[in-house]
Amino acid sequence: MMSSEASPLVLASTSASRQAVLRAAGITFEAVAPHVDEDEIKTSLKMQGAPPRVIADALAEAKAVKVSRRMPGALVLGCDQILDLGRGQMLDKADTLVQARAHLELMSGREHRLLSAAVIAQDGQPVWRFIDSATLLMRSLSPAFIDQYLAAEGEALLGSVGCYRMEGLGIQLFARVSGNHFTILGLPLLALLDYLRARQVLPS
Amino acid sequence: MMSSEASPLVLASTSASRQAVLRAAGITFEAVAPHVDEDEIKTSLKMQGAPPRVIADALAEAKAVKVSRRMPGALVLGCDQILDLGRGQMLDKADTLVQARAHLELMSGREHRLLSAAVIAQDGQPVWRFIDSATLLMRSLSPAFIDQYLAAEGEALLGSVGCYRMEGLGIQLFARVSGNHFTILGLPLLALLDYLRARQVLPS
Repeated sequence: MMSSEASPLVLASTSASRQAVLRAAGITFEAVAPHVDEDEIKTSLKMQGAPPRVIADALAEAKAVKVSRRMPGALVLGCDQILDLGRGQMLDKADTLVQARAHLELMSGREHRLLSAAVIAQDGQPVWRFIDSATLLMRSLSPAFIDQYLAAEGEALLGSVGCYRMEGLGIQLFARVSGNHFTILGLPLLALLDYLRARQVLPS
Repeated sequence: MMSSEASPLVLASTSASRQAVLRAAGITFEAVAPHVDEDEIKTSLKMQGAPPRVIADALAEAKAVKVSRRMPGALVLGCDQILDLGRGQMLDKADTLVQARAHLELMSGREHRLLSAAVIAQDGQPVWRFIDSATLLMRSLSPAFIDQYLAAEGEALLGSVGCYRMEGLGIQLFARVSGNHFTILGLPLLALLDYLRARQVLPS
């Protein structure tokens, strides 16, 4: 509705939350699974001592470039989000609710950073990149609170790197939230919209 | 689900967006229309030269106190949001799409502040209050963009003081957004949750 005709936009991700963010903002796109071996890239960069922002950017680029190679002309958006606990410690998505509990106990009472990287590739080459971070202070969570929270959210929280959906019960975990809401959701939307207007994918 | 038994929470507002924010955060509440003459309070305070934050706070208090008088024991939450364009200029909600266009033209290319006040009253007395602000820079909107935006959003945008829903197409209006997302939505949720935990309405 708010899109004009230009290069089609492709999201190199099947993440439900990123799709929801783009759709809500009135952006027309197609979602395609990138099939990138994220663990391999992550492990290799970590072994080289790469900082979190380099890893997030590299993963976003890998997804965008891979999908753009098979979709000539399209603007392909790759995204990645890293949770940085500081002192070289990063948290990956929890696979189970037992692991989610351990992650929540680790974050409880501490600050962490969310880094959200976005890269757009066209014909196999990155043509735009952006990274932003937000800092969140989790309050000290009681074991009883964690029980109730895990029971209420269930497996829905496994989709997010920090085991929380900020647009849902996740907000109850925090004492302080500093940074842009869309960066926290995993897609730095304002900067992306700016680029899409410059490429005439969106009207200005 | 995430609420325990304590004083019941009442929202002194029938605003759909504030109800949505509370519900998403897992808070149990009842919504009651405050029937406060907001225009009279606003006009009288403006004539006395009151700054925007005093007006927002006074309106939030008037709603909370009025409803709490008829609901003994309940914690009654009143909220108000003021859009401050600076130099003593405040924008009220648009009543029509013609008025909305005029408001958008006035905000286009300029910065404005959103002030979100919240007051909780119990048995006719305010017992908690909080106010926060966010600063937003609207980009320069072309007449063609405004046409498309008004057509796409329609009367849905009349519900918001700035003629935008940040959780929808509204994000396309902005060059920069600084401040908490919930303050922008009209309900400073983090501070409210903190108080509700202290009052044992929510588990900590």
